[in-house]
Amino acid sequence: MNYRMIFKSIGTVLCIEAACMLPSLLVAFIYREADTLSFAVSMFITAVTGFLLLRIKTPISRIYTRDGFAIVALGWLHVSAFGALPFLLSGSIPSVIDAFFESASGFSTTGASILRNVEALPKSILFWRSFTHWMGGIGVLILMIAILPSVNASTINIMKAESPGPAPGKLVPKIRQTAEILYIIYIVLTAIQVVLLLAGGMTIYDALIHAFGTASTGGFSSRNASVAAYSSVYTETVITVFMFLFGVNFTLYYMVFKRNIKSVLRDEELRFYFGVVITAIVLIVLNINGTVYQSIGESIRYAAFQVSSIITTTGYATADFNIWPAFSQVILVLLMFIGACAGSTGGGLKCIRVILLFKIIKREIAKLNHPKAVQTVKINGRIVDEETLSGVMAFFFFWILIFAVSVLIVSLDGKDLITSTTAVTATLNNIGPGLGLVGPVGNYADLSVLSKAVLSVCMIVGRLEIYPIMLLCFSSFWKRSSI
Amino acid sequence: MNYRMIFKSIGTVLCIEAACMLPSLLVAFIYREADTLSFAVSMFITAVTGFLLLRIKTPISRIYTRDGFAIVALGWLHVSAFGALPFLLSGSIPSVIDAFFESASGFSTTGASILRNVEALPKSILFWRSFTHWMGGIGVLILMIAILPSVNASTINIMKAESPGPAPGKLVPKIRQTAEILYIIYIVLTAIQVVLLLAGGMTIYDALIHAFGTASTGGFSSRNASVAAYSSVYTETVITVFMFLFGVNFTLYYMVFKRNIKSVLRDEELRFYFGVVITAIVLIVLNINGTVYQSIGESIRYAAFQVSSIITTTGYATADFNIWPAFSQVILVLLMFIGACAGSTGGGLKCIRVILLFKIIKREIAKLNHPKAVQTVKINGRIVDEETLSGVMAFFFFWILIFAVSVLIVSLDGKDLITSTTAVTATLNNIGPGLGLVGPVGNYADLSVLSKAVLSVCMIVGRLEIYPIMLLCFSSFWKRSSI
Repeated sequence: MNYRMIFKSIGTVLCIEAACMLPSLLVAFIYREADTLSFAVSMFITAVTGFLLLRIKTPISRIYTRDGFAIVALGWLHVSAFGALPFLLSGSIPSVIDAFFESASGFSTTGASILRNVEALPKSILFWRSFTHWMGGIGVLILMIAILPSVNASTINIMKAESPGPAPGKLVPKIRQTAEILYIIYIVLTAIQVVLLLAGGMTIYDALIHAFGTASTGGFSSRNASVAAYSSVYTETVITVFMFLFGVNFTLYYMVFKRNIKSVLRDEELRFYFGVVITAIVLIVLNINGTVYQSIGESIRYAAFQVSSIITTTGYATADFNIWPAFSQVILVLLMFIGACAGSTGGGLKCIRVILLFKIIKREIAKLNHPKAVQTVKINGRIVDEETLSGVMAFFFFWILIFAVSVLIVSLDGKDLITSTTAVTATLNNIGPGLGLVGPVGNYADLSVLSKAVLSVCMIVGRLEIYPIMLLCFSSFWKRSSI
Repeated sequence: MNYRMIFKSIGTVLCIEAACMLPSLLVAFIYREADTLSFAVSMFITAVTGFLLLRIKTPISRIYTRDGFAIVALGWLHVSAFGALPFLLSGSIPSVIDAFFESASGFSTTGASILRNVEALPKSILFWRSFTHWMGGIGVLILMIAILPSVNASTINIMKAESPGPAPGKLVPKIRQTAEILYIIYIVLTAIQVVLLLAGGMTIYDALIHAFGTASTGGFSSRNASVAAYSSVYTETVITVFMFLFGVNFTLYYMVFKRNIKSVLRDEELRFYFGVVITAIVLIVLNINGTVYQSIGESIRYAAFQVSSIITTTGYATADFNIWPAFSQVILVLLMFIGACAGSTGGGLKCIRVILLFKIIKREIAKLNHPKAVQTVKINGRIVDEETLSGVMAFFFFWILIFAVSVLIVSLDGKDLITSTTAVTATLNNIGPGLGLVGPVGNYADLSVLSKAVLSVCMIVGRLEIYPIMLLCFSSFWKRSSI
């Protein structure tokens, strides 16, 4: 294990994080809030720690897969911890575990909150809270790759560990360029959304907050009532559409840019994602129209927003789906697990994995019918190797296992089963609101310290897709075997 | 597909079923109940249908894997349908779907009931209800293999399809002998339990009913309050121990008989099963002692019974775990999915599959640490082939998929999420009681016809471990390709 390189990389990330606190400091300054000092101190602590780590001498700069995983896992834990400083120092969130929870929820783009009254917080603190979303969206370390010159070929191992999906690829041969392209797409799409929200009459502050929340599929809002506070069909439509767009694999946008529209339209994951969204909206509309809502227009409006929000794991809400009928709730819970496309900013299992699992089942059945025939699994016309397939299957069981263990621990709080179960579902899949006490109009404030700690870990585990964080728990991982 | 052989086999099974109605007819006769006629008519209808199917000429008697699956799937559907006749004809359960539900619940050894008041039913009907458990325990078709002379080597394909576990083996080279040995173990253990229950003061009728329910890990009782009705520590202890024993792989009893004790004690699945049971009891005792029950003795008594009942998927209850704290409930739900050992009469995923899934995850993590090392998965010192491993993983996803789809359909009833979710959990895993409305003191009577139909299918799908029933749904399965 290349410990020196690992900690040096964390140093770089912390320096970037310190720099990212600058916009929030500016916001504090503009609104003449007392928190200017808290941000200055937070920046100072983060930057100094970063610089000290950066001074580590690294005779060997090569990063192996293991090192990549360690950098990502420890990097995210550090970023979340230091990201909690502004909450703590400003006194906005006085409890350490609460501040860490909120920061981890931000960076992991979950959007679960321990705040009972969001609107009571200073604007600069809320800005930081939403900015952590935006930083976490594509990945803090991919940002590092994109902006730093000292990037070598082995950096792909960091990208692999941080990017969602079973087999993240490079768009262009050079990894740094790939990272740059991803960030350009991210920034351009966010900017378009900000403009559209401004056009709908939002203030620039609110537009930024909600664009950050949408682009990262995070879901933090500056309002207690989330997006429902604006009661504007235009705003809801913009956010519905952009949530959907940020759930699409970013590679496809690059292909659109390269005028390779045919491949985009043929993409199996996109078709599946689109199909699931439409099916879910139709089923929920049929279920809630005439029972919860009186007009078909209203039913479509609320169903579309909630479906788009949940499958992309954003977590914005315009309706309290806690009072929707059971059938609609089950659909939403299923969407929570499916999640968005690989290579997007969304969480969950990811559509591509679900497609592969379906195809694996189809193959098992075909095997029973024709025991001797050789069967392969294809995606977009290309054969998926067996290694990837068994990886996806193992991943699924691992996901369910972590889900089960976390529910067990959280249930120690003695809250009802729906609350315990969906709290874990909503954090592990990086959504935000669950059902019951942690539903769209509730929050995570009433849970115990133990539960908050477990759920914080769930958020980071979910964002990094299990392995980086899990590897930290195995002693064999830490052996100084190869280098 | 060898259609002739398939329907002929179903004919044999129906004749066996008709014969199995005889004991219930005798009970009706002994207790001078009016249902003697209902049983006579049911027997007649079943036997005549069986004989007609038996007259089918079969030029080719070879049974391929596909045929085995079709025989088992269609066989179980027919057996459940004809098994509903006594309920219907006697008027005890006037609704067709309710009668089918109860019969499917019996044969699949689930023990879920639509009856609100069990004690109102004639003794002979309750006897039949419990006898269906006992027939379904090891398998109706394995019974056929055990008693019929016309068994050839290809019958292994029937046994494969009906026996639980990822890779059911033969105890002895001859398949018929294997089936006989299984039945002998089953009968001897049941007989011992009957004697022990009689020793505790139960009537012979009650002892038989509860031994049938325990041996098959079914869970039908003759009392509304289930085993709690006897409020006898002795009786509860006997049933607790025997539920555990019937959850053990029957192969191990054969090994004990062959004095191969060492291998039995080293068996990984047995150790896992035992470990899970002890851990679950300890955790639940810590959770319920002082809150639900006042003495440690009482806590252990109720925890041990419920754990043993749920992990073996029996479903007898001595406590209303609906009112237990959330933590204990989550443990019980997890046990519902784990289930008993392969090769036992219990349901669920089976311990061996859970062990394999854990080992697969361990291997995935090892792969990340040492990408180039070749890693194998071993069980009891022997390497498990990759085919079996990917089969187990696909099985797990298939199980969760059927679970999710069934919950979605059942939730259309508009019952609370806990009821919808655990109703499917309890039927798919062949347990019986769930939580909420279908908890240990509730029943399935209030569900819609659609839900009852879906849950009936879940019970048979769970008992046959998915594939036989699922294959019926694929048109490719029905092609007359080979023979």
